[in-house]
Amino acid sequence: MASSTASDPEDRMKFCTACGGPLVLQVPPGDSRRRHVCSRCGEIHYLNPKLVTGCIPESEDGRILLCRRAIEPRYGLWTLPAGFMENGESCQQGAARETLEEANARVEILQLYTTFNLPHIDQVYLLFRGRLLDGGFSPGEESLEVDLFDEADIPWDDLAFAVVRETLRLYFEDRRHGVYQPRVGDIHWRSGEPGDYETILL
Amino acid sequence: MASSTASDPEDRMKFCTACGGPLVLQVPPGDSRRRHVCSRCGEIHYLNPKLVTGCIPESEDGRILLCRRAIEPRYGLWTLPAGFMENGESCQQGAARETLEEANARVEILQLYTTFNLPHIDQVYLLFRGRLLDGGFSPGEESLEVDLFDEADIPWDDLAFAVVRETLRLYFEDRRHGVYQPRVGDIHWRSGEPGDYETILL
Repeated sequence: MASSTASDPEDRMKFCTACGGPLVLQVPPGDSRRRHVCSRCGEIHYLNPKLVTGCIPESEDGRILLCRRAIEPRYGLWTLPAGFMENGESCQQGAARETLEEANARVEILQLYTTFNLPHIDQVYLLFRGRLLDGGFSPGEESLEVDLFDEADIPWDDLAFAVVRETLRLYFEDRRHGVYQPRVGDIHWRSGEPGDYETILL
Repeated sequence: MASSTASDPEDRMKFCTACGGPLVLQVPPGDSRRRHVCSRCGEIHYLNPKLVTGCIPESEDGRILLCRRAIEPRYGLWTLPAGFMENGESCQQGAARETLEEANARVEILQLYTTFNLPHIDQVYLLFRGRLLDGGFSPGEESLEVDLFDEADIPWDDLAFAVVRETLRLYFEDRRHGVYQPRVGDIHWRSGEPGDYETILL
């Protein structure tokens, strides 16, 4: 379940959530950045990056579960189950919840695999390796289709997001070497075009 | 620089930031959780966990840099440099920025070391190993004092946060084994008392 809106949060920061007063952009005392400050009650409204948690669900025979998106953005393209982390849960719980919601699949979370910064949209992805339990899966409300893929069958040209493509690329590379090495990286957009990005690993 | 307020965000969610209309708690269509929804314009205001990024700064001779806090909470106690991640930066950049702000120390970020969930306060900590560059440091605005510590001198009883204590404990354990193994864990409060918590590692 996506739990954030797609529009620019900056555009929607006009009134104070605490008192309804008008917000102004200014640098609060002791700070070095402009914040949305209430001109009536003084409340400071910070905007911070959002965490997206997700899973690489592995079947017993080594195939990977992917979901074909039934929602925008990237309707009809394939992705790993992932979505915005909710208050009150851990990132592992978030990854397992998203897998259940999008693919009706239960997983045991094994390892944090990739941590990807997407600074142009203020998101950080935490993608975990997960072991599919009891083998059952079916499309959740946000998926058109859910299926297991061998490496040779991954729909590389129809993947929804760069972060999914880069994670799967590293994953299969690591599998050939027999060790899944956790990675941290940044994905930088060159233009707005899908596929036109640069990946920098730590 | 801490970039979030300490009070409960739920208490401050009364008015819509987009139109100033009154917010009501309800489950939006297609969602399964109660959200703050504007009764005038329909805008949904999601609350999500915040990321705290920080650093374990290592000197050339293996000592660790700690900062004694000049701010609440935990005024006067020792901590690793860390704070809320800002929009537009990567978590590695956030960790390096916090180290510069709190300790006037430049670091090269080496590795994501601990990822700790603090679900009771809706925070996720990402703490990186960092190599101190050029050796200089001094207290930033939020620090009373900054110093380098050997393992034997770490002020274990005067550490500000459980997440710092657990990270340093794992760090020195790993150092004895010669390998720094990235960890994911949860810190669960048993009561409100400092020190009364449980750590569960993935």
